[in-house]
Amino acid sequence: MRAAQYRGAGTIAVDSAPEPEAGPGEVVVSVSYTGICGTDLHILHGHMDHRVEPPGVIGHEMSGRIASCGAGVEGLAPGDPVTVMPLVWCGTCAACRAGHRHVCQRLVFVGIDSPGSLTNRWVVPADVIVPLPADLDLRDAALVEPTAVAVHDVTRSGVVAGEKVVVVGGGPVGLLVGAVARARGAEVLVVEPSSFRGSVAREAGFEVVDPTSDDVAAHVEAWTEGAGAAVSFEVSGTQPGMSSALEVLGVRGRLVVVGIHAAAREVDLHRVFWRELTLVGARVYERADFEEAVRLLAVGEIPAELLITAVQPLDEAAEAFATLDAGGEVMKVLVDCREEQA
Amino acid sequence: MRAAQYRGAGTIAVDSAPEPEAGPGEVVVSVSYTGICGTDLHILHGHMDHRVEPPGVIGHEMSGRIASCGAGVEGLAPGDPVTVMPLVWCGTCAACRAGHRHVCQRLVFVGIDSPGSLTNRWVVPADVIVPLPADLDLRDAALVEPTAVAVHDVTRSGVVAGEKVVVVGGGPVGLLVGAVARARGAEVLVVEPSSFRGSVAREAGFEVVDPTSDDVAAHVEAWTEGAGAAVSFEVSGTQPGMSSALEVLGVRGRLVVVGIHAAAREVDLHRVFWRELTLVGARVYERADFEEAVRLLAVGEIPAELLITAVQPLDEAAEAFATLDAGGEVMKVLVDCREEQA
Ligand SMILES: [Zn+2]
Ligand SMILES: [Zn+2]
Ligand SMILES: [Zn+2]
Ligand SMILES: [Zn+2]
Repeated sequence: MRAAQYRGAGTIAVDSAPEPEAGPGEVVVSVSYTGICGTDLHILHGHMDHRVEPPGVIGHEMSGRIASCGAGVEGLAPGDPVTVMPLVWCGTCAACRAGHRHVCQRLVFVGIDSPGSLTNRWVVPADVIVPLPADLDLRDAALVEPTAVAVHDVTRSGVVAGEKVVVVGGGPVGLLVGAVARARGAEVLVVEPSSFRGSVAREAGFEVVDPTSDDVAAHVEAWTEGAGAAVSFEVSGTQPGMSSALEVLGVRGRLVVVGIHAAAREVDLHRVFWRELTLVGARVYERADFEEAVRLLAVGEIPAELLITAVQPLDEAAEAFATLDAGGEVMKVLVDCREEQA
Repeated sequence: MRAAQYRGAGTIAVDSAPEPEAGPGEVVVSVSYTGICGTDLHILHGHMDHRVEPPGVIGHEMSGRIASCGAGVEGLAPGDPVTVMPLVWCGTCAACRAGHRHVCQRLVFVGIDSPGSLTNRWVVPADVIVPLPADLDLRDAALVEPTAVAVHDVTRSGVVAGEKVVVVGGGPVGLLVGAVARARGAEVLVVEPSSFRGSVAREAGFEVVDPTSDDVAAHVEAWTEGAGAAVSFEVSGTQPGMSSALEVLGVRGRLVVVGIHAAAREVDLHRVFWRELTLVGARVYERADFEEAVRLLAVGEIPAELLITAVQPLDEAAEAFATLDAGGEVMKVLVDCREEQA
């Protein structure tokens, strides 16, 4: 079989790899699709060499079918459509003891801290397997993991039906957050400077504001009849995005920090105080978020077609990374890991 | 009678004033004590002339007794010990409609936006009166308003018994926050650079860390056995205070923004994300907070004796402000507004 390996900063190479075998409590999954995300790009750029030792197979947003089960694995059978919730927690740290295992202080993120899914067949602990409904397209199912991120973000916001929500950043995560919030009955406005991403967001049914030409705060003020938004999601990871996400909120508004901020940001704490705002960090997901993500994809609440810009075969994994890295008119890129494609 | 008037930046002057009369729905209160707080100093410095037009009587942390009641006032009688919850809301704005009247978008803060209690007798709407128990010392009762602030802050934090709490800033508000958190069963650590304030905090029974000589984060790490604090209160209004308050929190920790931050602060949003922290703004109080504050003072949970550094007569109101403004070995300064003292 074949696998795409991270070979050090800037290089992904596809090569032959030994067939994995399922040890006790493990399963081998025949990978169908693997999505590439910002974290994978970050690894490619060499920024995460402290966690990913080259040569290493990465990839953690995937769909596939069970190929074989190791000893002691129950409830799973070859052929079952599945995805993976790529978290392995220690169970004993303060976070785990407090019931927040998904932010375990010694969390192993499968596909980063252990080998990933950019391969034909992938061995993982059976615990991380999440079954998929038979009628969910496996291409769409590659979006379960990022959708689970969005479900977690929206859950952390406490959004309820009828609330007005501003999503700052209209990339794949932003639109997934918007779609999940909409599925819960919220009215969603997306703030996005790129005209390509803005047009995808519009196609997905969202109202869009371009912060380079529009006054976002004034727009939201008018949209909410002076009340301000109930919830905002900072998905851009930028200072202007953070400022916008804070500025649009009304009294008791909630801001969810979704984006990765590489540096400390200036935050108007007087506004946080004055309007009694809440800022909430949200990272990865819990099992319930994953299950909700599967359900939302299955019922068509997630605009998967619009989000998947390209699908490239495993042997062209390097090109798939390059497509995403080039930016421009691209949302999500999937790698087709099915053997017949290799 | 006499009243202390703000006469413009830097000047408080005590002069004769006409006797107030209670109109319909109003009461006249014979003021016993009025505490001076940071907001009052801010007014004295001329920073709030957009809200306080000289000459104006200020003061909003008070205790007293009903002197007379206007037409239509029920449930109150001359001689009743009372304090005032100095908020008047509009009832119709988005915040009021959402049930958050205390942060009404058109809030009138009595003693700032309308005349205050640095006078012998004070007329206020009967709605703002909060009755006091007969056995609560009226000197201590001048701390009800700032204690209600602390109750509101602690309520917003969601602190529960057994949690470890860090209060950054050991001034009057910080120690009140600490006392309220302790009354709810929390273990409290106070971070305070001033040796005077640190010694008052210790006398009040708190563990104290001096950030100028100790590594606060390391101290909290050890204190919590690696878990980090559950809750922190940023009461200092400073950048180092904010950084500390964030740094000490464990996974899912909550930080309450209590202090007034005059400028935007650098906030490590990556940490907020990574540890799934929550930052909460808390401003003034709701009626339930006021009632809880009265109860806590009545049962002796608030170290009122330690917090009241000086009591000066109304005719020396300017000196009382100067004492507080000079800083140094001072916590709370009260003005004795009883007529026999004038
Ligand atoms: Zn990802
Ligand atoms: Zn753990
Ligand atoms: Zn005050
Ligand atoms: Zn209002």
